[in-house]
Amino acid sequence: MKTAVLGFGTVGAGIHEILQKAEGLESGPVWVRRGKADEAWKTDDFDRILADDSVGAVAEAIGGTDPAFGLAKRVLESGRHFVTANKMLVAEYGPELQKIADGSGAAFLFSAACGGGVPLLHNLALARKGDEILRVSGILNGTTNYMLDRMQNRGMDYGEALKQAQALGYAEADPSADVSGLDALRKIRLAAAVAFGILPDGCLHEGIENVSAEDIRFYQSKGLVLRLIAKAARTEEGVSAYVEPVLFGRNAPEAAVSLNNNLAVYEGRFCGRIGLSGQGAGRYPTASAVIRDLESILSGARRMLPEKTVREAADNGSETHRYLLRVSKKFRDLFPDTEPSGEPAADGSLRLMTGPLPVSRMHALANEIREKGGRIAFAAAEE
Amino acid sequence: MKTAVLGFGTVGAGIHEILQKAEGLESGPVWVRRGKADEAWKTDDFDRILADDSVGAVAEAIGGTDPAFGLAKRVLESGRHFVTANKMLVAEYGPELQKIADGSGAAFLFSAACGGGVPLLHNLALARKGDEILRVSGILNGTTNYMLDRMQNRGMDYGEALKQAQALGYAEADPSADVSGLDALRKIRLAAAVAFGILPDGCLHEGIENVSAEDIRFYQSKGLVLRLIAKAARTEEGVSAYVEPVLFGRNAPEAAVSLNNNLAVYEGRFCGRIGLSGQGAGRYPTASAVIRDLESILSGARRMLPEKTVREAADNGSETHRYLLRVSKKFRDLFPDTEPSGEPAADGSLRLMTGPLPVSRMHALANEIREKGGRIAFAAAEE
Repeated sequence: MKTAVLGFGTVGAGIHEILQKAEGLESGPVWVRRGKADEAWKTDDFDRILADDSVGAVAEAIGGTDPAFGLAKRVLESGRHFVTANKMLVAEYGPELQKIADGSGAAFLFSAACGGGVPLLHNLALARKGDEILRVSGILNGTTNYMLDRMQNRGMDYGEALKQAQALGYAEADPSADVSGLDALRKIRLAAAVAFGILPDGCLHEGIENVSAEDIRFYQSKGLVLRLIAKAARTEEGVSAYVEPVLFGRNAPEAAVSLNNNLAVYEGRFCGRIGLSGQGAGRYPTASAVIRDLESILSGARRMLPEKTVREAADNGSETHRYLLRVSKKFRDLFPDTEPSGEPAADGSLRLMTGPLPVSRMHALANEIREKGGRIAFAAAEE
Repeated sequence: MKTAVLGFGTVGAGIHEILQKAEGLESGPVWVRRGKADEAWKTDDFDRILADDSVGAVAEAIGGTDPAFGLAKRVLESGRHFVTANKMLVAEYGPELQKIADGSGAAFLFSAACGGGVPLLHNLALARKGDEILRVSGILNGTTNYMLDRMQNRGMDYGEALKQAQALGYAEADPSADVSGLDALRKIRLAAAVAFGILPDGCLHEGIENVSAEDIRFYQSKGLVLRLIAKAARTEEGVSAYVEPVLFGRNAPEAAVSLNNNLAVYEGRFCGRIGLSGQGAGRYPTASAVIRDLESILSGARRMLPEKTVREAADNGSETHRYLLRVSKKFRDLFPDTEPSGEPAADGSLRLMTGPLPVSRMHALANEIREKGGRIAFAAAEE
């Protein structure tokens, strides 16, 4: 199957390279920005790709939604299979693209958009057919895991860890989507769509920007390891989806995820808890996931999204966790059902452990405190 | 797709139950032993299944090779898809059954035969098409992992741990296939066949029967965790495949595998190291893997074994490890390139760390020592 590639950045170049060797696949033209077509097999004219009847599939690695969405639509309308590593595109327009694919009979797969090389979506899409998926969660952002790893195992503070992540190319010059949890949230929304047929909107994300070296030392004194976890689950009202820091015991599999690795876990009524780990980003892991999608098209796969996948507001009010807080003293009264958990922090903030608190309530309280100029860091205690 | 089930034991009953609910699947007749057909949907007449044109697939959960092999042949010859959880059957007759399937166009899938609920074979079969798999390894026997977990975290000795594994139904009355590493070896041979197209014969297995509570305490004093690991890898000469105890640092993912869980890891040139964990046995995890195979047939999958899969003698002479030994003093001279590693054991045996030693050499030396009445326990030091 001759496959055109859109974009020739880190991932696009990786896809083009692996296509030369992969069973049953063949590399087609590579679409690049205007004026960048410096090889015969590159083109800056998208129409040329659609005019080439020998192209059976297109792999997109441009990123962003414009022009990716317009191009994806035209690829699918032409009946060609479309695979992508672009989480923004799928989080924004997944159900819409699926409808076009359904209309033309083309395949629409995007496993590289969530977890990079980790085969999460691919396995979820298969598992949900014969099982009932109860929840999906995981360490889905390698940059923040790398930073937390350095803070916990090298004693770095937040700024040093971020600088090192940037020096290694893990974090962008503007790292806000990583450290705020937004990147992990986009990925878990895709996982929820595949697992539950619901693409949740209005999700909550707390990142790691408020985690201090002092917090880390405090957690370690209690034998706990901090990870940034994205979660989605079936609830009585629908589907929850959020990102927040979570504390694990030292022997938990999550605690063993080092450097910029990812770990995704899904739980099915029959299969139990299945863990999937690997490199969540990088040229070859991500490109290999795109190739995996193409190979599975050759084996007959056509879709990851369940039929009738819908958008729906996330239900983050019915799940509860106990949270370990560092919070300015003056906001103590916002948390009536808590007990002290260790000495106050150096700036006088209190360390408190809450009773079971709905996720949406915890995130709302943190927002309220920050809006009023207070400081708070929170992390869920893994049961 | 109406699916008949062969066998109504733990796994067969699980398959029959999940078939009632799985998307696109329908439960067909269940074949049981003569005289056990006590429900209208059970039959002890295999011909009735083959005479039923509405049956499109057969799931086998009898175990063993007789009558499983004869029945499998007839199913595949009839053009019906055949899926199985039976590792002995596939390890013994996999390539032969694949040939029959190729002839009739039927699917032949067996992901439940290796890793139970852990989707190892399924992912390997897809990954190898677009990637070059370099090695596969893992904790593939839940019984022995449970025993090692109890020995390391509860201070049990070998006998107590085995008794508890039997009480929980993890270990058979005759546990020899588990504790000798033979069960894990059968599974890694299947993984090698799927990953490399070579079903290795003449493999080596060292189990956990020689591991004492004193050994465990000694390893723990060095910060090491013992796991029974099955490994297969591409070598210059072909494919290696063996099972042996391996020592890991406390932060390794393998060290975080608790109780009777499994963890499989494969490494591809492009995808890097991918870890897959979950329940390796039990009614629902194993049955869910059989259902997963059936669902993937509905999506177009037809095979796990590469075309032209061959049997070949394993090459266990080109991989080397350093080994930590406990060995009777009189056999000291068999290991010239070693250094002492801690105090002698209570019975006077020496604790030595070898230099790099070929796997086949290590296993042969252990056999030689045991044949001469000496005692030895060995574990590879993970690099």
